[in-house]
Amino acid sequence: MSVQIPRGTQDILPGTVEYWQFVEQKAREICRAFNYQEIRTPIFEHTELFQRGVGETTDVVQKEMYTFEDRGGRSLTLRPEGTAAVTRSYVTHKMHGEANQPTKLFYIGPMFRYERPQAGRFRQFVQFGVEALGSNDPAIDAEVLALLMQYYQSLGLKKLKLVINSLGDTESRQAHRQALIDHFSPRINEFCSDCQSRLEKNPLRILDCKKDRDHELMATAPSILEYLNDYSKEYFEKVQQYLKDLDIEFVVDPNLVRGLDYYNHTAFELMSEAEGFGAITTLCGGGRYNGLVQSIGGPETPGIGFALSIERLLSALAAEGIELPVSKGVDCYVVTLGDAAKDKSVSIVNTLRAAGFVAEKDYQDKKVKAQFKAADRHEAKYVIVLGDDELQKNIVNVKDMQSGEQVEVSIDSLVQHLKELQA
Amino acid sequence: MSVQIPRGTQDILPGTVEYWQFVEQKAREICRAFNYQEIRTPIFEHTELFQRGVGETTDVVQKEMYTFEDRGGRSLTLRPEGTAAVTRSYVTHKMHGEANQPTKLFYIGPMFRYERPQAGRFRQFVQFGVEALGSNDPAIDAEVLALLMQYYQSLGLKKLKLVINSLGDTESRQAHRQALIDHFSPRINEFCSDCQSRLEKNPLRILDCKKDRDHELMATAPSILEYLNDYSKEYFEKVQQYLKDLDIEFVVDPNLVRGLDYYNHTAFELMSEAEGFGAITTLCGGGRYNGLVQSIGGPETPGIGFALSIERLLSALAAEGIELPVSKGVDCYVVTLGDAAKDKSVSIVNTLRAAGFVAEKDYQDKKVKAQFKAADRHEAKYVIVLGDDELQKNIVNVKDMQSGEQVEVSIDSLVQHLKELQA
Repeated sequence: MSVQIPRGTQDILPGTVEYWQFVEQKAREICRAFNYQEIRTPIFEHTELFQRGVGETTDVVQKEMYTFEDRGGRSLTLRPEGTAAVTRSYVTHKMHGEANQPTKLFYIGPMFRYERPQAGRFRQFVQFGVEALGSNDPAIDAEVLALLMQYYQSLGLKKLKLVINSLGDTESRQAHRQALIDHFSPRINEFCSDCQSRLEKNPLRILDCKKDRDHELMATAPSILEYLNDYSKEYFEKVQQYLKDLDIEFVVDPNLVRGLDYYNHTAFELMSEAEGFGAITTLCGGGRYNGLVQSIGGPETPGIGFALSIERLLSALAAEGIELPVSKGVDCYVVTLGDAAKDKSVSIVNTLRAAGFVAEKDYQDKKVKAQFKAADRHEAKYVIVLGDDELQKNIVNVKDMQSGEQVEVSIDSLVQHLKELQA
Repeated sequence: MSVQIPRGTQDILPGTVEYWQFVEQKAREICRAFNYQEIRTPIFEHTELFQRGVGETTDVVQKEMYTFEDRGGRSLTLRPEGTAAVTRSYVTHKMHGEANQPTKLFYIGPMFRYERPQAGRFRQFVQFGVEALGSNDPAIDAEVLALLMQYYQSLGLKKLKLVINSLGDTESRQAHRQALIDHFSPRINEFCSDCQSRLEKNPLRILDCKKDRDHELMATAPSILEYLNDYSKEYFEKVQQYLKDLDIEFVVDPNLVRGLDYYNHTAFELMSEAEGFGAITTLCGGGRYNGLVQSIGGPETPGIGFALSIERLLSALAAEGIELPVSKGVDCYVVTLGDAAKDKSVSIVNTLRAAGFVAEKDYQDKKVKAQFKAADRHEAKYVIVLGDDELQKNIVNVKDMQSGEQVEVSIDSLVQHLKELQA
């Protein structure tokens, strides 16, 4: 009986992994251009970090974490998201004290949530995220959004919808919070028990409720935008002005909210509008979190970032019918006839590889015909044929598989010859 | 009180992460040339996989695994190594049925072992490994070793020592096993209790014992090489011949053994001989494991591979004083004077980035002098100066920081101008 893969996880195999490599490499290139540097935090953290940094009351922390004790009795949790760990690292290494500010970081790596497995949703999934810590300039909000849009667009995606909102600063949020309480209180008994307990704890989350979304009070609930104070209003206008300067299209949706206290000002989501993309259209979410660093024990630090799922990005590419230009196949396949030629091919492929060519040979003792077939399957551009006769003359036959042309070349000048063919 | 990083783990931060990126990118390039394709398996597997694939009696499985139950009561384990998971995936996806054989795979990713943290040893560490499954050709053993050596040498490492051995096939191993029992039995009571229990279970592991290594019977123990049957002997000779053909230096050490039953034929280790590298000199280990796929429930399949730690590789580079050519710093830093210029700089950096330049600007409301200092710290090649005066004329000043030359350029032709400067 063979061992199975754990439920809700997947292997990423050759034939698919090339797309992962491509989109991750593109993320690295764009982060480099925007001067965001990579950070790698551990796969697990102390459980307390996520309780504080993601929020005790969230579904993620209450129901979805992989939490366990190590052999020393510490409670550890496989990271369910990236931001808490990045800010933990920011505090651990006192990055706020470094000369270059803001601290601009990105990460790419697996995250873990114990959710019900379903199409396109995995218990281990990969997120690419960026975080800019230490600046309160609306221009950095625009920069983060510009990076995000440049990333998706550089991959060829067109059917994108960027939605933004402002949650305001603490003062604005308090005023809105009171307005929500005043709005819902008189008829809160018509709402579900979750909403009833949210009323005092976090009335903003009532707006997220799936059970009560059709209640008439939902549509008439006070909008955060009406409660922004001057600073928050000006901040949001500046962000929008920069987005216009950058030709980034967006819509403002006052219902785009974030339940946790440390979120403020800019919030955003990117959606795919491709047909057949499925029910969950959100590709990426992010926003400003000026209270987060403090909540995990660091100094007061403004921050903004986003996180996106590579799985969903690849689904969006498929939904738009975009074929990424990944390289497959080999440059050269060495076909041999006879034992001496077979032995010699070991060093020939090695020389080709050292020169940078993708080279392959047979390791299954195949007949010549089957070797040619293997060369075809490997989409070889050049087939290099070596028999014991050629070996005695120290030559090989190089066949260009596209043109069908065939030439004799000395083994010593093979690399040079192939370089000229490719030039 | 801030949350700490879990004991025995580390953050890989900007300033260091560039070396990781470099050596991983190099691994990918060399695997591509050798036509090994990436595979990504989950971070955790069913615990049973490692019990079967790594071995119940090993320290790794008995003492060092991060094992936990998920919310569904399944026993999961953070992978302590890569080979068991790759072979599990090989079986899960019936790769033995694919047309291209052998199946040539590589992986790069974190592994987890609960060991006592010490210098250079972490509970989460990164391994790069390759596996070739499905070929019994000694040329593939040579290929795996050639890939390994080309990898380390391409990074500039010189003080390397490759040690190889043969463990023979099952018949040879049985003969050697009996010889070991005959050798140690008469005086086994002089050995530690571990060795006494190893005598019948796995006498080969007595040779690994740290307590008894000075016992006189150790030096005179029968060597596996004396017990190789003709096939095993010929196989080993062929591997050595190929290594010589490839100019790969090696030494044969009959004491290099692998305790687990599914190892056979070629076994190898690569050591650093750099001074000051430390007590643990092994950089990489590997070998043939023709019995592994079957032991985890798949068909009988020959296999060979290696695994190396990126942490140790970086230590070896440091010990040899090798500085990798990583790119740091930015191409352009935009310095602004005045509010309108500051606003305009948002779209200027964005245009530069879209054109592939690494561009940075100020987000901290710094004065001009401090912006120039920041440009220095970012090692900017070009400083682009924009005041409100220049903005009115739609120009910028481009200062080449190496030559000190300064020219006025229209904003619209800035990208073109910088491309010419870099050409």
